[in-house]
Order: sequence, then structure tokens, then C-alpha cells
Amino acid sequence: MTKWEELDQNVRTWIMEAGKTIRESFKEELNIKTKSNRNDLVTNMDEATERYFIEKIRGTYKDHNILGEEGFGDELKELSGVTWIIDPIDGTMNFVHQQRNFAISIGVYENQVGVLGYIYDVVHDELYHAYRGSGAYMNDVKLPKLSDVPVEDSVIALNAQWMTTNKRIDPAVLAPLVQKVRGTRSYGSAAIEMAYIAAGRLDAYISMRLAPWDFAAGKILIEEVGGVVTDLEGKELDPLNKSSLFVGKPGLHETIMTDYLKR
Amino acid sequence: MTKWEELDQNVRTWIMEAGKTIRESFKEELNIKTKSNRNDLVTNMDEATERYFIEKIRGTYKDHNILGEEGFGDELKELSGVTWIIDPIDGTMNFVHQQRNFAISIGVYENQVGVLGYIYDVVHDELYHAYRGSGAYMNDVKLPKLSDVPVEDSVIALNAQWMTTNKRIDPAVLAPLVQKVRGTRSYGSAAIEMAYIAAGRLDAYISMRLAPWDFAAGKILIEEVGGVVTDLEGKELDPLNKSSLFVGKPGLHETIMTDYLKR
Repeated sequence: MTKWEELDQNVRTWIMEAGKTIRESFKEELNIKTKSNRNDLVTNMDEATERYFIEKIRGTYKDHNILGEEGFGDELKELSGVTWIIDPIDGTMNFVHQQRNFAISIGVYENQVGVLGYIYDVVHDELYHAYRGSGAYMNDVKLPKLSDVPVEDSVIALNAQWMTTNKRIDPAVLAPLVQKVRGTRSYGSAAIEMAYIAAGRLDAYISMRLAPWDFAAGKILIEEVGGVVTDLEGKELDPLNKSSLFVGKPGLHETIMTDYLKR
Repeated sequence: MTKWEELDQNVRTWIMEAGKTIRESFKEELNIKTKSNRNDLVTNMDEATERYFIEKIRGTYKDHNILGEEGFGDELKELSGVTWIIDPIDGTMNFVHQQRNFAISIGVYENQVGVLGYIYDVVHDELYHAYRGSGAYMNDVKLPKLSDVPVEDSVIALNAQWMTTNKRIDPAVLAPLVQKVRGTRSYGSAAIEMAYIAAGRLDAYISMRLAPWDFAAGKILIEEVGGVVTDLEGKELDPLNKSSLFVGKPGLHETIMTDYLKR
């Protein structure tokens, strides 16, 4: 039996410690590499932070699995038992260019189900967390349940790059939505964008290609306040594979799906 | 003769006081009106904050002019003498939806020339300021001079709404730029986006329609760190009229102008 309250206390301690180390690293020179393409950045801090979490988890929970963005965890074919899904720095481009607007994202799943989710906005010292069935919180203040909003009064997160020719979606599908909403925003960190959805600061968020570590924690947060989390076709996310993402307030999610995405 | 150091101290005191009042207002109910269209919002706090600044300025500087977004200042046909250009809450949509990511923006001009510029990110308590000839600062830490960056390594601010059919620009002009850059962002506050340019967190920012109070302070900040501030045709901004805006790092601004905007 997993002692979830104790685990929750451990994660918080580790996240705060990792956040402190990251903030202190701003004084040092950053070592930046590119991964699959020149815009997919990774730094020594991404790698060091993931290694830090893995060491802590392995030291305390020997039978837990770990799925991490930087690949120092396990190779998983299925989610069974307890699995930690970790993005040590979500929004690495922001970390490199801005030294802000990035987050530590950790989701803890039991079999297929998200139990605990954490998104820590390191620079603004804001910890969003959710415990399945007990609600979502920002710095321990409970977040209210989300409610419907008309498309024309909504503010959605959507990157301008999906509005030009790309491999994932025809921009003509998104254009009527972008023209109808009150405003669009883009922050460059899926974790922060999902935390904003949970906190009611954004009404919907669309992204065309994300990995499990980008959405594992955010999914738990958003569902705890009644938001809807699917891929762009309205299907359940696969916590082991990349996919598109469409999250939003209840009601609004269905309206956008019916009137814009599936038209 | 204007005593600029004394004026600087006064503005800071007033901005901090106004910021405190705005933060405290989060506990109260907001009274939201729409202006020219349903997405152009104004709240009681926009109006109260502008009135607060006007009262302070009139009480101390009887011969100064005031141009304010909410229209409680003067009707100006030209900039002569000392003119305060004020946006009490830049990013009202964010203020309403997010209670963050908005700023107080104040530029103080002498004749046609910007002398002092202030952008106060109220929730994050970050004051960006510049004094013509003395550099730009964030919370009194001097911001370094900006330097060139290749288009493909740049992060630019550009709203997705300009990438759909609109009255201001053919999205086909912007598409190759959006596809070439490393990333795009959109924060929904011209003042914050210009402060980010001055701080080197964004490399360029394009917006199709802004008013003098949106860019009056940001222009001073950006120019003090060597950035370039023009409209989308590369022309000097008119501090009394609406226009498009294109700001960026030196070098990058010219490259984008030549290779994308004027192609």
C-alpha cells in the first residue's frame, strides 16, 4: 500500500529543493544542447534536475517506475504499479531565453490513474497541486470548480505557429475559432498553460504535439476542478505516448469540439 | 525647468500606491464594461487608477499635459511642454480574466522626446523604468544592452489572431517569419511585451494596432538598451496616434524588416 500523504510530503520537499537549485543556477553559465532539432533545447539543469528526482525516488520507493523527459528513468511499455511521470523543466526554451515561465511538472499515477499532480512555477514560487478526489490547489489555496463560458467571451492558449502551414493541423480548422474568441495567448510551457486552465485564467488550451511528461500533472489538476482533458479528436490521452492536447472548461470544451474542431 | 529626479521619485511613489490599491481590489467585485466592442473591456479599476494619477499630477505639476487611455486627461493636438502618457491598466483583458499579466504604463515626454518611462507589472511587483540617457532598469538592476540574434534563434511575440484574416495585415506576410523563428509567444499586454523586449526575454514583438499609451513607456525602455522601435513599415511612431508596432533587438529588427516585412 502506498502511503500517499507521506509521498505527497516527500514530493513537495523535493520540488522546493529542486526549485531552489534552479533559481540559484541563474548565476552560473548555462550549458545548452539541442536534441532532435535546433529548437528542441536541453540544458545541464534539465538533466541535473531529472537525475535529482530519480535519485530521491529510487532511494525511497524502490518498486516505483519513473518516466522522465530526459530519459534517465525507465523504458515503460505499460503503466502498472506506481509510476512517476516527470518533466524536470517544462518550457526549456523559456528557461534559456527568459529565466522564467517554466515549471517542474510531476504526475504520480497508479496503474492508469493519475493520483497526485504537481506543477511548480519556479520563479514565481507558485505550486499548483492536486490529489485525486480532494481538489486542486495553488499554494494550498483551493481552486474553485470551473464552469462554462461562451466561446466569444473565452481566452484560449494557442501558439501562432499552428496558424501557419504545419504537419499536424490545417490552420483553416483553427482560424474560425481564433477569430471568434475574445483573445488568444501563448506562454510556451504546457505545464504552465494547464495550470492556468486549472486556475481559471485561461478557458481552453490547444497544442498539437505533447509528450506524457508535458501533460501528466496538468491532466490531474484540470480534472480535479471539473475541466475536460482530451486529445484534439476528443479521445482520452494515452499517458505513455505523444499526442495532441485539447483542454478546457466544461461546456466550452464540448462547444469548441462540436462547432469548430469536428465541423 | 522640470526637476526630473524629483518627478521620478513622485512617479514611483504614485505607481507603488496605485499597484497596492489594484492588488487589494482583487478581493472586491469587479465592475466590467465594454467600450467600442465586446472585447474592449474597461473596469472601475482602470478608471479609478487613471483618475488617481491625474489628481496626483494636477496637484503637483499644474502646467503638464496628460494623455490617458480612459480619457480623463487632456485633448492634445500636439506634444509640447511636458506630457504624461498613461495607461492605468495595460492588459485589461488579463486583469479581468487572470488578475495578473497586466501593467501600469507611464511615459513622460518633453516636447516630442521620451524622458522617463515606467512599466509596473503589478502582481509580480516588477518595476521596469528608464531615464533617457541613463539606461533601463528592472527593480533598479540595470538591464544590459541588447545585441543581434539570428532569426532562427529568436523568440518573438505575436498574437495568433494576426495569423488569420484580419483588417490590418495579410497573414501570408507573417507566416514565413513565424515558421522560421525558434518560438512565438503572446502575453496580451503590450507594456509587458515591451518590458520583456527591454529585458532581453523576447527578441522582437509585432502588434498591428496600438495606442500611444500602450507604447509610450515601452519605447523609452527599449531605446535605452539599444533596441529598435518603429511601426510595421519601419517608420518612427507618432506619440499622439494609433499605429502598428514592430520592436526588436538591433540587427534582428533590420533583418526581419528586410527579409520578411518588406519582401
